[in-house]
Amino acid sequence: MAFSKEFEVGPQQVAAFADLVQDHNPIHLSAQFAQGTRYKAPICHGLLLTAYISGCLVEVYGQGTVYLEQQVQFRRPVPVGSKIRVVLGEGEAQEKGALKLSTTIEVQVGSYWKKAIEGYAVINPGY
Amino acid sequence: MAFSKEFEVGPQQVAAFADLVQDHNPIHLSAQFAQGTRYKAPICHGLLLTAYISGCLVEVYGQGTVYLEQQVQFRRPVPVGSKIRVVLGEGEAQEKGALKLSTTIEVQVGSYWKKAIEGYAVINPGY
Repeated sequence: MAFSKEFEVGPQQVAAFADLVQDHNPIHLSAQFAQGTRYKAPICHGLLLTAYISGCLVEVYGQGTVYLEQQVQFRRPVPVGSKIRVVLGEGEAQEKGALKLSTTIEVQVGSYWKKAIEGYAVINPGY
Repeated sequence: MAFSKEFEVGPQQVAAFADLVQDHNPIHLSAQFAQGTRYKAPICHGLLLTAYISGCLVEVYGQGTVYLEQQVQFRRPVPVGSKIRVVLGEGEAQEKGALKLSTTIEVQVGSYWKKAIEGYAVINPGY
């Protein structure tokens, strides 16, 4: 069965990520700057959103899980302050005990969930 | 010409990332737990290391850069407290003005730099 988990990604998370990895692009941090772009308001770093996949994999596959690969395609900007959900698909068996699974990040837009990031992970599960 | 930038990834960064994205796997946070694993000491979250690519892309390609895709393969565990460097390859022209470039993360091991993460990004450059 697919796993999904919701997160709120607000200005505090975006500012913390910007400081942590030294990416202070004003498109993520400044309402004034963002207003002059096609996005009109600050958007989350794509790799911040991607990072939420990490804990979800541990939650499903255990602490001993080894990450082999992650691919993400960024489909839709996610405004700062959005509610997102990480959706993990069923694992498909690969060589040497590895599993490949879809990793989707959706953003809540009104009463809909829309795909913001699509991709897949390859892991060695921890159990 | 290839771009490269060094970062130190210590316990403070790893703890901040764990809190931010809610991944408190003890393999990243507990020396005692890690000692009982094949790694012997805490290792960085793979997606924390990956996240350093983000600011480097902005530094090279400008604030208006749009991230289309990122792929990473995790080749080697990176102990907490390591010095890493992000290496961006030359951009190759794709359809519709996009660029594809290699994104490598190396870890300092003694006096060597060894590949920890290999992959590529696809972007629409900001200028």
